[in-house]
Amino acid sequence: MIIDVHGHVSAPEGLYAYKANLLAHRGYHGRGKIGISDDQLRSAVETGGGRHGPSHLDHLEIAGIDIQLISPRPYTLMHSEEPAKIVQWFIEETNDLIYRICNLYPEKFKPMAGLAQTPSTTPKEWTKELYRCVQELGFVGTLLNPDPYEGLKPPPPLGDKYWYPVYEALCELDVPALIHSAGCRPPARESYSLHFIIEETIAVASLLESQVRNDFPELKLIISHGGGAIPYQIGRFLPAAARSTDGDTYYDRLRTLWFDTCLYTQESLDLLLKTAGTDRCLFGSEKPGTGSMVNPKTGRWFDDIKLLIDEIDWLTSDDRNAVFENNAKKLFHI
Amino acid sequence: MIIDVHGHVSAPEGLYAYKANLLAHRGYHGRGKIGISDDQLRSAVETGGGRHGPSHLDHLEIAGIDIQLISPRPYTLMHSEEPAKIVQWFIEETNDLIYRICNLYPEKFKPMAGLAQTPSTTPKEWTKELYRCVQELGFVGTLLNPDPYEGLKPPPPLGDKYWYPVYEALCELDVPALIHSAGCRPPARESYSLHFIIEETIAVASLLESQVRNDFPELKLIISHGGGAIPYQIGRFLPAAARSTDGDTYYDRLRTLWFDTCLYTQESLDLLLKTAGTDRCLFGSEKPGTGSMVNPKTGRWFDDIKLLIDEIDWLTSDDRNAVFENNAKKLFHI
Amino acid sequence: MIIDVHGHVSAPEGLYAYKANLLAHRGYHGRGKIGISDDQLRSAVETGGGRHGPSHLDHLEIAGIDIQLISPRPYTLMHSEEPAKIVQWFIEETNDLIYRICNLYPEKFKPMAGLAQTPSTTPKEWTKELYRCVQELGFVGTLLNPDPYEGLKPPPPLGDKYWYPVYEALCELDVPALIHSAGCRPPARESYSLHFIIEETIAVASLLESQVRNDFPELKLIISHGGGAIPYQIGRFLPAAARSTDGDTYYDRLRTLWFDTCLYTQESLDLLLKTAGTDRCLFGSEKPGTGSMVNPKTGRWFDDIKLLIDEIDWLTSDDRNAVFENNAKKLFHI
Amino acid sequence: MIIDVHGHVSAPEGLYAYKANLLAHRGYHGRGKIGISDDQLRSAVETGGGRHGPSHLDHLEIAGIDIQLISPRPYTLMHSEEPAKIVQWFIEETNDLIYRICNLYPEKFKPMAGLAQTPSTTPKEWTKELYRCVQELGFVGTLLNPDPYEGLKPPPPLGDKYWYPVYEALCELDVPALIHSAGCRPPARESYSLHFIIEETIAVASLLESQVRNDFPELKLIISHGGGAIPYQIGRFLPAAARSTDGDTYYDRLRTLWFDTCLYTQESLDLLLKTAGTDRCLFGSEKPGTGSMVNPKTGRWFDDIKLLIDEIDWLTSDDRNAVFENNAKKLFHI
Amino acid sequence: MIIDVHGHVSAPEGLYAYKANLLAHRGYHGRGKIGISDDQLRSAVETGGGRHGPSHLDHLEIAGIDIQLISPRPYTLMHSEEPAKIVQWFIEETNDLIYRICNLYPEKFKPMAGLAQTPSTTPKEWTKELYRCVQELGFVGTLLNPDPYEGLKPPPPLGDKYWYPVYEALCELDVPALIHSAGCRPPARESYSLHFIIEETIAVASLLESQVRNDFPELKLIISHGGGAIPYQIGRFLPAAARSTDGDTYYDRLRTLWFDTCLYTQESLDLLLKTAGTDRCLFGSEKPGTGSMVNPKTGRWFDDIKLLIDEIDWLTSDDRNAVFENNAKKLFHI
Amino acid sequence: MIIDVHGHVSAPEGLYAYKANLLAHRGYHGRGKIGISDDQLRSAVETGGGRHGPSHLDHLEIAGIDIQLISPRPYTLMHSEEPAKIVQWFIEETNDLIYRICNLYPEKFKPMAGLAQTPSTTPKEWTKELYRCVQELGFVGTLLNPDPYEGLKPPPPLGDKYWYPVYEALCELDVPALIHSAGCRPPARESYSLHFIIEETIAVASLLESQVRNDFPELKLIISHGGGAIPYQIGRFLPAAARSTDGDTYYDRLRTLWFDTCLYTQESLDLLLKTAGTDRCLFGSEKPGTGSMVNPKTGRWFDDIKLLIDEIDWLTSDDRNAVFENNAKKLFHI
Repeated sequence: MIIDVHGHVSAPEGLYAYKANLLAHRGYHGRGKIGISDDQLRSAVETGGGRHGPSHLDHLEIAGIDIQLISPRPYTLMHSEEPAKIVQWFIEETNDLIYRICNLYPEKFKPMAGLAQTPSTTPKEWTKELYRCVQELGFVGTLLNPDPYEGLKPPPPLGDKYWYPVYEALCELDVPALIHSAGCRPPARESYSLHFIIEETIAVASLLESQVRNDFPELKLIISHGGGAIPYQIGRFLPAAARSTDGDTYYDRLRTLWFDTCLYTQESLDLLLKTAGTDRCLFGSEKPGTGSMVNPKTGRWFDDIKLLIDEIDWLTSDDRNAVFENNAKKLFHI
Repeated sequence: MIIDVHGHVSAPEGLYAYKANLLAHRGYHGRGKIGISDDQLRSAVETGGGRHGPSHLDHLEIAGIDIQLISPRPYTLMHSEEPAKIVQWFIEETNDLIYRICNLYPEKFKPMAGLAQTPSTTPKEWTKELYRCVQELGFVGTLLNPDPYEGLKPPPPLGDKYWYPVYEALCELDVPALIHSAGCRPPARESYSLHFIIEETIAVASLLESQVRNDFPELKLIISHGGGAIPYQIGRFLPAAARSTDGDTYYDRLRTLWFDTCLYTQESLDLLLKTAGTDRCLFGSEKPGTGSMVNPKTGRWFDDIKLLIDEIDWLTSDDRNAVFENNAKKLFHI
Repeated sequence: MIIDVHGHVSAPEGLYAYKANLLAHRGYHGRGKIGISDDQLRSAVETGGGRHGPSHLDHLEIAGIDIQLISPRPYTLMHSEEPAKIVQWFIEETNDLIYRICNLYPEKFKPMAGLAQTPSTTPKEWTKELYRCVQELGFVGTLLNPDPYEGLKPPPPLGDKYWYPVYEALCELDVPALIHSAGCRPPARESYSLHFIIEETIAVASLLESQVRNDFPELKLIISHGGGAIPYQIGRFLPAAARSTDGDTYYDRLRTLWFDTCLYTQESLDLLLKTAGTDRCLFGSEKPGTGSMVNPKTGRWFDDIKLLIDEIDWLTSDDRNAVFENNAKKLFHI
Repeated sequence: MIIDVHGHVSAPEGLYAYKANLLAHRGYHGRGKIGISDDQLRSAVETGGGRHGPSHLDHLEIAGIDIQLISPRPYTLMHSEEPAKIVQWFIEETNDLIYRICNLYPEKFKPMAGLAQTPSTTPKEWTKELYRCVQELGFVGTLLNPDPYEGLKPPPPLGDKYWYPVYEALCELDVPALIHSAGCRPPARESYSLHFIIEETIAVASLLESQVRNDFPELKLIISHGGGAIPYQIGRFLPAAARSTDGDTYYDRLRTLWFDTCLYTQESLDLLLKTAGTDRCLFGSEKPGTGSMVNPKTGRWFDDIKLLIDEIDWLTSDDRNAVFENNAKKLFHI
Repeated sequence: MIIDVHGHVSAPEGLYAYKANLLAHRGYHGRGKIGISDDQLRSAVETGGGRHGPSHLDHLEIAGIDIQLISPRPYTLMHSEEPAKIVQWFIEETNDLIYRICNLYPEKFKPMAGLAQTPSTTPKEWTKELYRCVQELGFVGTLLNPDPYEGLKPPPPLGDKYWYPVYEALCELDVPALIHSAGCRPPARESYSLHFIIEETIAVASLLESQVRNDFPELKLIISHGGGAIPYQIGRFLPAAARSTDGDTYYDRLRTLWFDTCLYTQESLDLLLKTAGTDRCLFGSEKPGTGSMVNPKTGRWFDDIKLLIDEIDWLTSDDRNAVFENNAKKLFHI
Repeated sequence: MIIDVHGHVSAPEGLYAYKANLLAHRGYHGRGKIGISDDQLRSAVETGGGRHGPSHLDHLEIAGIDIQLISPRPYTLMHSEEPAKIVQWFIEETNDLIYRICNLYPEKFKPMAGLAQTPSTTPKEWTKELYRCVQELGFVGTLLNPDPYEGLKPPPPLGDKYWYPVYEALCELDVPALIHSAGCRPPARESYSLHFIIEETIAVASLLESQVRNDFPELKLIISHGGGAIPYQIGRFLPAAARSTDGDTYYDRLRTLWFDTCLYTQESLDLLLKTAGTDRCLFGSEKPGTGSMVNPKTGRWFDDIKLLIDEIDWLTSDDRNAVFENNAKKLFHI
């Protein structure tokens, strides 16, 4: 069985037309309603033909994914837009759609929330939606954007106490957060997609030089996209950690976090699994998404990660089960 | 016959989902394509049931409108977003959709353009799309937003030479511009809808204290929504004009502009027609739009302006023909 | 009898020389004193020949005004200057001069205050001068500037709780406020005079979409210059109000405010009186002021509003009395 | 005979009321006119009783001043206000008044100009008024403000080539400039009066470490108030100059400038005359002004500088004639 | 033979005391001189005992490095400090010291330059020092900082034409640049060391989505620290490149750049060599530097990269020679 | 006996290399250690040959100085750098070095502290180091920088209550503060050295127009460099003080402060001693420092202030003892 912890919702156009409208009227028309029917929801999941080719369900089928955790598409979340209420409305509506889709396909999808992390509201306020989603709607976890300013100015890093109200809520609810940034505004040099990698890199570095792992030993943070640059650049961090007095190597610290496998080359997956350990990695594909294209040279989908993992020969059967299924079950209680 | 010079396109959700996507990826996915079929275009115009009740075509039918000039919905135009190319893409795509709709209903709709008036590009550059629309696609006029910063900081006012490249293009192409602002960003105190009124007020005041009417005697500028506050507040401007040496009263100056009738009360229409003269007013309803609701006390649509004009008893038959039809025909060559 | 609720003080040059000096030394010379004698005060009111032609008293005589409420000239109030103390000094000195003038002409003038609404002080602090003027000096009301930043950045709108300390003081003292903005700094596109219209427009819109009318049912706010654009543009606001659940039309809401008649054309006065009702309009002329010029075509003073109202034929005698006299008496307790 | 090179005009209140009005309407009323009669000008000069006690003429009489060069009061010049045209209008009007006063008292007063040094205009543009004043109106010199930003941000220092167009005009016209700053805006810590001292200090330091003295050997710059801090702090500058290769000591450099005697203690005058030399000092009193008060302990006017110089015993008769009269005659050609 | 292309100079304290002094006096003491003797230079290279333990030469000995290319220590370069001249002075002095050290140890060290990339000067101006170093002093290459603002705001990315003057100079001189950022100012979340990784990541992504490889086919850019995150995250970039029309895969594009081996774990080196190819990798250790500590668990130096490469079993002898020696010889002409 | 209250430490290059390093890594390497031996400290004090010629001890010998109070070199203090901790580390390390040097030469040097006056910390927090230095290390006083922003924006002036926590600590500890600014950042027009003079000028003016002398009658503030411009410009301040009601002349106020003699010309020293009084002046030379050069015309050191004072003939023997020795002993309890 394969559980994919990193999937994003395929929603009908109506959701994004709703968002465009919020950005146009800036809240003056009120929250309004999204008139999306269950049929439209099903169609969004079951119909292919667009940018990604096959339908969402077909993608899962092709890649052998049995269960996928689906969250809002991060780059659409617009945390830094004003006024805060339009961000809140959009994210709540998105969570509600995810809830409905998961109810339509209870065997296939599990819901992951987005939070309205607007700069003018506090982390404590952000958790209200987390409580609603988990306690009222049965969500199994949430996205957490380490950069609510979306690239414009540096927020407090994840190791800062600024973030503790979120960590407290995660621990109290016993759900994981998938660390994943959202948009990236001009005049940044990087695309939102590269911004993900940068933010994950800063997130890991900040967390591992902070006291978070000591202050929240039960906290479950999963770093998207295989941890940004850190597993590859880990050598740079080994000496400073070796000088510290707590006796932990940087490898020890790294293994207080979890990582998804959302990397599309075998060499990278090999490095990740060796560096973080198979007990700290969870299958994640972001499918359908950035990697959903057939490699013209191999005929394989770039984002068919299962095939890549299958070919890593040093993995034991237990290793594979852990990465594909058991780690996710334990973390998400599914 | 009734020609409505102030209508906005009713587009399928796909257009706005496309816009939302541009704002999310900020251009990194490239321009992409809007996959909207002719059937979807027809459905957007012929199907009712949403915010405005009846379909667009039904609205025109109910209100007795024979021909409507349709432009992009101004509050969706997002002139101030970055990078400029996403604004350009969206507005060009919108113009293309308008072109297609007008071709589907050639007897009913005539196309009016939107221009990508981004702060980082020049007015000269904005006119490139105007030339394309008029010369290649047969558009009969264009919107012109006097506030491309969308409320954040003051742009040069319409009387400033900054705007002359646009006026030159309008004169060369012999098409009118409908002065109409677009969005209004936080932390402004006003909604985009009130921002329209403010911008039109400033536009008229600036134009009439400038040399534009002398430098461009052939320029055809139509002020939306009955000229903002100016016809009502005209008394405030009479003394200063009377002191000037050119011999024109402020009424004379006012009558170098045109005004649409997009006001929803009889007293206001009466004041406008008396103040600007029936030879300077053009029927405009913005239908379906802000006023598309049935007044529960009268059973009439708030935006059924024809009924209101019909009840103004001092208008001659020629006056009515001018406002309803002839002025528009002359100005737009239709 | 005619009571003009919108007049501004005609002060000797010494007051403005004092202001110029404050702006030059920025408070370092201390508050100083304005050495203006009663004779100078009388001369400022009784001597003509300047920009406005006849003397202030002659203007009132010509226009048939029996009593005028005089406040500081708003465009001189410089609320946004720093340090706050120079604003406070100037406005207190101005109020004191108004007090002296009203004592010299007790049958002709009634005092209206200005408040030092500086951005670095709180609305609560602003009311201290209001209490002094009303309780110690017998003032009958006050100006209230909805834009203390004078055009540079948006302040909280009048519907915001930011303003409640002022409303509480007005209710406790049972005096009206005349909503009237002051200066307008570069690089704004509009003159201070047009800024008045814009600010009144935003003021009405904000108040009528807020809870102020419910939270302060006894509050008496008079909107200058006939309410900016709103009576003319009221149609734009009818549908949204009709959708709201409180059962009030936008006309009902509008009639929780008062309006002066400071408009200089008959069509506008007609529209205002019909739209707001004669029980909500007060005679106001701003005389001598912007409109104080003889129309070369008619030989009438532009700002002779009484003549214009006299010619509105549908007004009853009671209507005229209300507008000219009775509404003011009731509101101001004079 | 005593020639006072540092006097400022005593103008009627009308001039400052005019200025206050410009600041209030920001140019929207146009330039307007100052209706000041010759009688009012005479009264402003011949009538005492205000802040400074005796009349301006009486002050000169008391202090034994035969001829005084009068310029605008610097702290009123508001160089940093916007739009630039109101600054220009005010300064031109002030220069015109000075011209008229000097024509009324041709034996007593000689005119010195002010320049509209606004940040949005260039030094080249500033000189237009200098040419007008000198060539058309017979002015003998001008003020020059080293800080047109009035304390808000650092302008280029006087040694910078930015200022060369002004120096070229001064040399071409063969007139001196009195270096004297104007206003000082919040949130500066210093009063405008202390700002004078600071600006003169920076001015001398910048000039003497620059190439100005080499590039403009004919340039005549007089530093107000005895040179700020420099003559007292000169020791601090001697070593660096001694290290330079041009062979000039800092004393040599200092003596390429001129200094007025506007200091009110004998010790300071003594130091100045010794440090700069009697051939580089010109009698200047700023009378009536900051020092125009009778010292209660001595019964003397604080600003009676002649008395103080008289008591410096080491001065020869030639020295005294140079400082009181001859240096000024030579520099100003009077 | 082992050539290390990524070494930084070990300079005497006098160099940094000189820098501290420049930052303190901001250029007012002039450029001054660094009085460092050859003995002090030798001592800095040959004496150990500090942060890094053994001496610089001993480090090379231990690690088996025969020749090292030494450049300024990047994190000391302070490109964003003002005024620009102090940056220029410091960097020129540093280059001169490097030149002297290389002359003292001509068999051991080859010089690499730093450039004064200050925000207030142009890339064209930066190249002046490059020409001096290469043409007059025989330098073999240079550092190039992709982020001269040191983290405060985004500069144009390396794919932008802004950088073309530098690329032109590199091509004309036929020398490589080592892409390596410098400082990282507060309030950034990352250390300068992590900033290196982020900047290299952005640098590669920007270069490979631009036309630089086509416009400068001879350009030799070496990315420090194994290319930041890109070789590990390469899967993310494969699909977009596969969609492009030029027929190059992202691997093809990647191989238009060079990479150093400055990574301290065998898994990472393995991934880099496989991903970029042994013909595109150059031995680089940054020794002595961040990694210069003995791993307490293994007894090895963290930055002994030769040992790690030796243990990668799939490398052929030619591969090893290429990485250790031949690629560097070809690129640097040494 | 001569006690010099204004000396700055001569420290080994290692201190400034340490500072340069802090500015480069911005705290990421941690505080680290300065490995400076006692021999290096002795060498820094006893070895000449640099910028100032003779050694520090020789300078004192030449100038006849028996005891010198040494503080950090102010222009190196970088109060405005971020993050605050690097400022704190550097200043604490500097204080510790001063302590060690004073212990090595207990007859020659007495320690004066520097405080980490960073903009992001409070004056209360700054005093922690003052308590440590005085109570634990026996320091006799401290520097106090009136401009912790180092020229970028105006801080609260010394007369403001913002500074009271520092004054309270000084009084409680019964130690004097030497008012002395530090760096001066671009784009200021003045060098740090001229900035000292400006800051001292503003400091005195602010203190003497405030209530500090009344609120802290025991406070001992010494103004460096002879009080900036104030003793020379004192005439400007006499009239306003004479108008005040407290009966004190400005001379009285001035004499609530102390002044050092750090001026390098006899005329200036003469003026200072007359103006402030010999009981308020303390010998201070800043030696070796700005003035440490031999005047090529006289063969004397510019900063040999004792020679200059010796030549002031009106001083009594008691006056000389007070200035050279007794005032310092009393104030500093040495």
